[in-house]
Amino acid sequence: MTNDVYLAVDLGGTKAEAALVVVDDRGRGAVMPGSRHRQATGRSIGVDALTAVIRSLVAATLASAPDPVAGAGVGAAGPIDLDRGSVSPLNLPEIREFPLRDLVEAAAGAPATLRLDGTCIALAEHWLGATRGASTSLGMVVSTGVGGGLIVDGRLLSGTTGNAGHIGQLHVVDPGGPGGAGLGHAGGAGAGDEAFGTTLEETASGPATVAWARRRGWQGETGEDLAAAFAAGDPVADAATRRSAEAVGQAIASVSALVDLEVVAIGGGFSRVRPDYLDLVDAAVIRWGALPRTRPVLVRPSGLSADGPLLGAAALRARDDLL
Amino acid sequence: MTNDVYLAVDLGGTKAEAALVVVDDRGRGAVMPGSRHRQATGRSIGVDALTAVIRSLVAATLASAPDPVAGAGVGAAGPIDLDRGSVSPLNLPEIREFPLRDLVEAAAGAPATLRLDGTCIALAEHWLGATRGASTSLGMVVSTGVGGGLIVDGRLLSGTTGNAGHIGQLHVVDPGGPGGAGLGHAGGAGAGDEAFGTTLEETASGPATVAWARRRGWQGETGEDLAAAFAAGDPVADAATRRSAEAVGQAIASVSALVDLEVVAIGGGFSRVRPDYLDLVDAAVIRWGALPRTRPVLVRPSGLSADGPLLGAAALRARDDLL
Repeated sequence: MTNDVYLAVDLGGTKAEAALVVVDDRGRGAVMPGSRHRQATGRSIGVDALTAVIRSLVAATLASAPDPVAGAGVGAAGPIDLDRGSVSPLNLPEIREFPLRDLVEAAAGAPATLRLDGTCIALAEHWLGATRGASTSLGMVVSTGVGGGLIVDGRLLSGTTGNAGHIGQLHVVDPGGPGGAGLGHAGGAGAGDEAFGTTLEETASGPATVAWARRRGWQGETGEDLAAAFAAGDPVADAATRRSAEAVGQAIASVSALVDLEVVAIGGGFSRVRPDYLDLVDAAVIRWGALPRTRPVLVRPSGLSADGPLLGAAALRARDDLL
Repeated sequence: MTNDVYLAVDLGGTKAEAALVVVDDRGRGAVMPGSRHRQATGRSIGVDALTAVIRSLVAATLASAPDPVAGAGVGAAGPIDLDRGSVSPLNLPEIREFPLRDLVEAAAGAPATLRLDGTCIALAEHWLGATRGASTSLGMVVSTGVGGGLIVDGRLLSGTTGNAGHIGQLHVVDPGGPGGAGLGHAGGAGAGDEAFGTTLEETASGPATVAWARRRGWQGETGEDLAAAFAAGDPVADAATRRSAEAVGQAIASVSALVDLEVVAIGGGFSRVRPDYLDLVDAAVIRWGALPRTRPVLVRPSGLSADGPLLGAAALRARDDLL
């Protein structure tokens, strides 16, 4: 028998990618070797240039396909409009109500399904990664931004407009500020002397954490610098990265209060800024959890490779039973 | 044709109630006049006394039933355990893993379904109240506590253990503290001089708001006093109640980022502490919403009478297509 082959497309603020995803007869998906293509996007890209990028990516990717693809899955930075199949990514200011779904459908000659990129991550974790087998789960990424998606009762929570799952937009109490008064260990020098970041992303992302450390006299520039400084025993790097994990755990506790999570999978480069980052998240989920729970929320590292976003996009067609 | 009749039971921290709910041939439900019964519970109640209360309530209520009931729906304060059908209400400390579902089933001689009380409210609003017709909605109550439940993609979100929907347990940035630095109008005198309430309930409930006002020199004792003081132009009552609405709006913005809400219905006595409370919530939802949205979240007053919790409990059987 032949395997099913799907086209996967992922549109982000700095790049767009496409690949073929093969689903074997046991239902497992993988990116077809050599089929993955990438082109830059970036803040200044306009509608015509992005249209050309998408068409060229799809054509290059389909050139490696042995047969017509069974469908196309498209993940995109949001916000999106599910009804129209259009995207208006915050980080691509020239791109507003861009008809991405129809563009991919026409270029691929196959039906296309569009969802928010964070929800594709959650779908990939549920299909192939760290949240397999759970009924209700969160898949999230801590990196330059903080994003994610929810699986609820075994299905992807897309939301009415397609913009569900934005855990990075949850408001959090800054664990390094006066709101975290009981968490003095996380505060570090100067806690309480600045305005709060009010969303999780503004508080806990790599750039937000670097900025917090720099305001306390730390001299580095990047998340990688922060990881090195933590490894070398720098106390500000310790406090800053601990604060990030605390904020992530607090947000997970809030999400769990709302949807009663079984498990969360955390990926993204900044979640590896210190070896015990996920342990700190785990402890914070318990500390910020307001209610006694009959089952704890499991905190796991992402089970996905760098192919995760593309596998999640492919899952929009290959596992449309989960939508 | 005969109408369907259901037994509804609601177990709370201060009282337990039961009633018959009749569903007419257009699918509309209403409490049968004269069938509603109430008994006190309270912090000191033990297992034997609560068992007697439930049995007696069920017997008294069924005495008015013309025919055997078609089923029994049970709402309860949480946490609950959906698999076991048991409840461990925080405000009833002697009651732990109490087999409420099986007790009602045996007493009523009819199959029973148990859910968290907040989710029953959401179900009632969706069935008969202010969120009818919406695919994704939040039903919530601002009162002595803050609770609620979610309808997602047209179905009740119960959660794996049954404890989903706890909007009162979301962590919020105190709009009356330094975290709400941009909301100075909400701060009032002395903002920033106390530890934060970190959950929405600890921040915005009636008792929390009274306590906040009293720390600023206001002399009243209750939410009703606060409403009167606001009506009389008291500036601390104004700031305190505005802060409550701000926090509720902030939490709704966070919920919407996660599940992409169409509409929220807000009930509970404290949501009427000032005439413009829901207008303030509405403005705060927009102000705290991090992402541009293709559709706004509608903020509506609850469409339910005081029968809401019992109608929601009955809906667990009468509208089991929504579970």
